[in-house]
Amino acid sequence: MTTLPVAGGAQSLLSAARLAATDPAERARAAVDRSGFDPGEVPDGVVYAETVDDVVQALQLATRHGVHIVPRGAGTGLAGGSSATRGTVVLDVSRMNRILSIDPEEQLAVVEPGVLNAEVNAAAAEFGLFYAPDPASTAICSIGGNVATNAGGMWCAKYGVTREAVLSLQVVLADGRILKTGRSTIKGVSGYDLNSLMIGSEGTLGIVVQATLRLRPKPLHTATTAAYFADAASAARAASAIIAARIQPAILEFIDGGTLAAVDAMMGTEHSSRGGAFLLAQTDGHGALLEQQVLVEAITPFALSIEQTDDAGRAAELVAARRNAIPALQELGRVSIGDIGVPRRKLAEAIDGLADISQRTGVRIFVVAHAADGNLHPMVVVGHDESITEGPAKEALGEMFHLAQRLGGTLTGEHGIGVLKQDWLEEEVGSLSLELQHKIKAVFDPLGILNPGKGI
Amino acid sequence: MTTLPVAGGAQSLLSAARLAATDPAERARAAVDRSGFDPGEVPDGVVYAETVDDVVQALQLATRHGVHIVPRGAGTGLAGGSSATRGTVVLDVSRMNRILSIDPEEQLAVVEPGVLNAEVNAAAAEFGLFYAPDPASTAICSIGGNVATNAGGMWCAKYGVTREAVLSLQVVLADGRILKTGRSTIKGVSGYDLNSLMIGSEGTLGIVVQATLRLRPKPLHTATTAAYFADAASAARAASAIIAARIQPAILEFIDGGTLAAVDAMMGTEHSSRGGAFLLAQTDGHGALLEQQVLVEAITPFALSIEQTDDAGRAAELVAARRNAIPALQELGRVSIGDIGVPRRKLAEAIDGLADISQRTGVRIFVVAHAADGNLHPMVVVGHDESITEGPAKEALGEMFHLAQRLGGTLTGEHGIGVLKQDWLEEEVGSLSLELQHKIKAVFDPLGILNPGKGI
Ligand SMILES: Cc1cc2nc3c(=O)[nH]c(=O)nc-3n(C[C@H](O)[C@H](O)[C@H](O)COP(=O)(O)OP(=O)(O)OC[C@H]3O[C@@H](n4cnc5c(N)ncnc54)[C@H](O)[C@@H]3O)c2cc1C
Ligand SMILES: Cc1cc2nc3c(=O)[nH]c(=O)nc-3n(C[C@H](O)[C@H](O)[C@H](O)COP(=O)(O)OP(=O)(O)OC[C@H]3O[C@@H](n4cnc5c(N)ncnc54)[C@H](O)[C@@H]3O)c2cc1C
Repeated sequence: MTTLPVAGGAQSLLSAARLAATDPAERARAAVDRSGFDPGEVPDGVVYAETVDDVVQALQLATRHGVHIVPRGAGTGLAGGSSATRGTVVLDVSRMNRILSIDPEEQLAVVEPGVLNAEVNAAAAEFGLFYAPDPASTAICSIGGNVATNAGGMWCAKYGVTREAVLSLQVVLADGRILKTGRSTIKGVSGYDLNSLMIGSEGTLGIVVQATLRLRPKPLHTATTAAYFADAASAARAASAIIAARIQPAILEFIDGGTLAAVDAMMGTEHSSRGGAFLLAQTDGHGALLEQQVLVEAITPFALSIEQTDDAGRAAELVAARRNAIPALQELGRVSIGDIGVPRRKLAEAIDGLADISQRTGVRIFVVAHAADGNLHPMVVVGHDESITEGPAKEALGEMFHLAQRLGGTLTGEHGIGVLKQDWLEEEVGSLSLELQHKIKAVFDPLGILNPGKGI
Repeated sequence: MTTLPVAGGAQSLLSAARLAATDPAERARAAVDRSGFDPGEVPDGVVYAETVDDVVQALQLATRHGVHIVPRGAGTGLAGGSSATRGTVVLDVSRMNRILSIDPEEQLAVVEPGVLNAEVNAAAAEFGLFYAPDPASTAICSIGGNVATNAGGMWCAKYGVTREAVLSLQVVLADGRILKTGRSTIKGVSGYDLNSLMIGSEGTLGIVVQATLRLRPKPLHTATTAAYFADAASAARAASAIIAARIQPAILEFIDGGTLAAVDAMMGTEHSSRGGAFLLAQTDGHGALLEQQVLVEAITPFALSIEQTDDAGRAAELVAARRNAIPALQELGRVSIGDIGVPRRKLAEAIDGLADISQRTGVRIFVVAHAADGNLHPMVVVGHDESITEGPAKEALGEMFHLAQRLGGTLTGEHGIGVLKQDWLEEEVGSLSLELQHKIKAVFDPLGILNPGKGI
């Protein structure tokens, strides 16, 4: 890692900003996210925004001095989206972390971008409400980052991803002007949908400084079902049977045998003794128990054993197995977290394909998946001192993507392109789409200041 | 109405197109939609597309000859979006009306743009599925028009509008190139969301030639509740009580007393004898009956009488009251159909405000509303020979919009801007947003060929 002297424009920005740091520790911290991608460099400095004005000022200065800005929330991204190289300045909005209001009647929350996902949920819970897009990283990721990556989670099977949960945004553009997107009503079709355009744009079109989020009533009942299977193929067939039975689970998560063993090792649980693959399903709402019955009938032919509970404590333990999958695998080595999406009935084929890739490339691949939306997280695990962005790990990532394409799927279900998946984006969306996207980028950010080299 | 000779470029396009008409009847038909807006002119001709190639050819010719193109589906729009003036050529895609495939397992339909909304639902029903965005015009409006207006309907309260139901699109751009947006997986965040951008763009960014639609399992149970109230204020309070009770009805429709009387007159029903305002609610799914109980408890304090049914025939009769509201009012005079959205708890205030506007402007205003999303359709009714785009009717429309703004709402919930609402768009979205939207328009359609003077 090289710590170069700060370049001229960045220097001017950093000295004019109200709150900035240029010490090596802060620059090193702000260079990476949680993807495992290390750019091998550090940014010229970090500007901290505590107010919208701080963001406006930073971007005005960046425009004036031609400085590249890397927006940063909580830095938990898995695609290298908030990683930063020399010549750039990181704009860290994590201190803009107030919940501005909660409107229990209208079921909305207005928040600053640095608020953590779990904090929104904690505040909403006081009114019997919840915020549906719940990444496994809920306790450590920010709403701004969620918006920028269109984050998903377990509850998205039934309740949709971030794009379905954000009514409106306040965004500071590259030149410091403040744009409002969306509206505070549920429906609306006045003009182009700049709100959806902003969501998932990975910090390349503007800095999210405020978000109006849609909350939902907590379901009255939740019924949890955990099922163990001999192998991944049986579990995948069971997941398809649930969809075919026309049940809409709120949660439907798949964990393979290897991951179960890693979770057991970390948590002291015994899931892997009960089978070589695991499905966790929750149905909720007034019909939760009825739906659970149908679900259990659908999967019984495939399962070794099925556990049903409506005890909240036991349910939380089962959910924890899924939430801890990534940390558990990280105990085994460096993990590159894939994020492919396939048509949901092709889950079994995708899992088979991943086993092939593992064999061909010689890397270990573990699989967890949001089974109800066909969103798989294949985890490539290499040694603690091996690279996840070069060699066999990268080869496996490329093959994964081609597998997804072959099955009619996508490169990334919820983590974004960042820097890690750019090689395959054009192949997925086509050159015409990419051309239009670059022109849209130029509309919002003509000087190319925001998060250069990320996303599209 | 003037029928001018056909201009040079349009002439070249029309004679080169595979299927075209220039006879006065066809031109007159293609000049208007169902908004009541009459441009007082007719287009130079109509090109019919039966295939994607027909669309490509028409747009290549339009680009070459600099001809303005007005995309047209079924012509049922309520904002003047498919109305056409001289110097333009209408591109009518209503003959592209095949359902290309239904995938019951993946719960998707792939359709051409001219397929009627009700046809998709009929085809889906054979597999126990349905397509959720159900405009009252379901039997007569096309999917392409639905996409271009981000159409809503009754079921959208629970299941979302068109934007939530369209997974991917094929779009022909102004220069004849074919763009694919979206994907065939439920989730995905590869690149900017051009799919949402296209949805609701009112034919100004491209011609939709294919859509992949998300179908949903038909709910096992549906419970219908009809409630009659002394006045609109009580009904609005009951609607708020339902939201506050944390029930998510699939349908929650409001009809005021005047509209009820008009429906009774047309249909021979007797709703208006039972009260001065009406709410129709359906809950569905495995918990339908339980939810209905909670709902009925919530509204009982406000209602004169409540009818509950799970008989499909009786439910259809009750739904018909809402579906026939517009035609019934059209018996009384020319109708200008408003489409404002307000935060849903402000329904009562909005209805009061509309009564004021009626008094001040001297026009009659009837109100039906999708109560669960705060989307009101105030119907301004004037004499059969009076204008709805000038004078008091226009004044009322402007006041309506300001009312919506004052309540934190929007100009249009689901019908679009078209030509009728352009005067107020900038006030709603702001000049910066509009500037960006115009630049995005220029990215997709640099020559400004598609639907000039509509939408943004
Ligand atoms: C253990 C673990 C589990 C995870 N599980 C999930 C999961 O289940 N689902 C899921 O979707 N993700 C998951 N993630 C990934 C990550 O948490 C999400 O991508 C999250 O949305 C990132 O938020 P952040 O605040 O950390 O963003 P950052 O990492 O700081 O940034 C992510 C991207 O957003 C941009 N950005 C950040 N803030 C803003 C802003 N205010 N305005 C504009 N752009 C901004 C950055 O430039 C970058 O491109 C997981 C991560 C970890 C470590
Ligand atoms: C009685 C009645 C009830 C109604 N109820 C509702 C309701 O409940 N909810 C609701 O949302 N609307 C409702 N509408 C309005 C109307 O039906 C919708 O706006 C519908 O989506 C229009 O579809 P269409 O095919 O008729 O489009 P058109 O009127 O032909 O066109 C509408 C717009 O879409 C564009 N367009 C059409 N096809 C394409 C295409 N293939 N590609 C690109 N652009 C295209 C046109 O240029 C125009 O801007 C109602 C209308 C009537 C008459």
